[in-house]
Amino acid sequence: MMYRYKITFAYDGTNFAGFQIQPHQRTVEQTLKTIINRMAKQPNPPLHVIGSGRTDAGVHALNQVAHFDFPTYIPPASMVRALNSQLPLDVMVKQAELVDESFHARYNAHRKRYRYRVSQGEFVNPFRRNYTAHYKYPVDVATMDQAAQALVGEHDFTSFVASGSQAKSNVRTIYEARVWRDPNNDEICFDFVGNGFLYNQVRIMVALLLEIGNGQRPVSDVARVIAAKDRQEARMTAPAEGLYLVQVDYGEPAEKD
Amino acid sequence: MMYRYKITFAYDGTNFAGFQIQPHQRTVEQTLKTIINRMAKQPNPPLHVIGSGRTDAGVHALNQVAHFDFPTYIPPASMVRALNSQLPLDVMVKQAELVDESFHARYNAHRKRYRYRVSQGEFVNPFRRNYTAHYKYPVDVATMDQAAQALVGEHDFTSFVASGSQAKSNVRTIYEARVWRDPNNDEICFDFVGNGFLYNQVRIMVALLLEIGNGQRPVSDVARVIAAKDRQEARMTAPAEGLYLVQVDYGEPAEKD
Repeated sequence: MMYRYKITFAYDGTNFAGFQIQPHQRTVEQTLKTIINRMAKQPNPPLHVIGSGRTDAGVHALNQVAHFDFPTYIPPASMVRALNSQLPLDVMVKQAELVDESFHARYNAHRKRYRYRVSQGEFVNPFRRNYTAHYKYPVDVATMDQAAQALVGEHDFTSFVASGSQAKSNVRTIYEARVWRDPNNDEICFDFVGNGFLYNQVRIMVALLLEIGNGQRPVSDVARVIAAKDRQEARMTAPAEGLYLVQVDYGEPAEKD
Repeated sequence: MMYRYKITFAYDGTNFAGFQIQPHQRTVEQTLKTIINRMAKQPNPPLHVIGSGRTDAGVHALNQVAHFDFPTYIPPASMVRALNSQLPLDVMVKQAELVDESFHARYNAHRKRYRYRVSQGEFVNPFRRNYTAHYKYPVDVATMDQAAQALVGEHDFTSFVASGSQAKSNVRTIYEARVWRDPNNDEICFDFVGNGFLYNQVRIMVALLLEIGNGQRPVSDVARVIAAKDRQEARMTAPAEGLYLVQVDYGEPAEKD
């Protein structure tokens, strides 16, 4: 008998080659997998860790979710402590829960929230260099927030997908888009909630909104770029270090929202 | 003729072996010195950079100060841009000023402000691991603030100096000591302003205050440890990553304060 655990965890993506296992690279998935197999005394076949989805090199997570099947019962709070005692300091497990076999971290994820952080100023703040993208040109936050509303809804986001995407369909639904200034550290935040995001979609959307906020493009370009279904229309991709996976929701289908 | 520049700069100490030049180590002083000499086209003898004082490996600075003599006139704002265009992203020059030859970044520094940041919680926040010390035991902030007041004034801080200090005298004056909770990120800050600090003094004071805040020692231990003039009395040293050099003041002697 196996016990299925759902874990919620944060990581600083700076020193990881992303979430997903890649040969000879330091990845979050491999880091977790190694520890879980060590705790289970190297079972054969090895235990696997299934994340809600990948994040790229340099991308951070405040609440990434994964599941794995473990051969012995460990109380969830003890599982959290056991994992954290062995994890490097750039990954922290926040919660563990016992879930039934129907739970699947990837297939059951029905909503994700991402935040993208942009810092301004003429020069890069040394303390934020790995935690924000730096954009030194002036931008109008209200204009970007207005422009972002055209992304809300069900759209074919072909114009916003990086080459290399394996997605069968580029249709996704965005439930919420908000651009606001974080008064605590004077950074601009781009928040997106959707039923799923294509490869680099958030970073391409942010780059487009920054061009609009800087006046290089009109607000109406969002609708035009969506309609074009052409990756060349969006042009830029904002860098990885500003992106955070904030939340993954499970439960009933997205229609309930 | 040489032009003397005073520069104010920030650095993330995580990836530096401290401020001061050491052979085969990445240091802030060496990083600045290399760039300034390159800008001056490798003069012989090389130009030197004089900091207000050293900081240890892992210690951060929000406003460190240094001076150097440069063979050509460059407008201060252009000097800032020129330095930042060549500096790595973990150092940022905030200001440059032309000063006369009587200015000396180390000898004229008459007051320094340090902040020490402590994070709580059972586990280390991955995003704060290099920017705070983690102390998971409960502490009473008001008790630590009260205890810290006994550090204010002119004292022989022999009990608070690490071995290896080159100081001729261990007498220093602390003008201000404050312990408070930063509501923005729920961290505890220890602020100290003094006319100078001995090697590891702030980190040893913070470690003592944490033991008091946790109830392992009485508030009266601060006066007792000062009076003992014995390094064994203070016991612990808080780690480097929580420490920030916040400000260096120049001008009239400290008596004015």
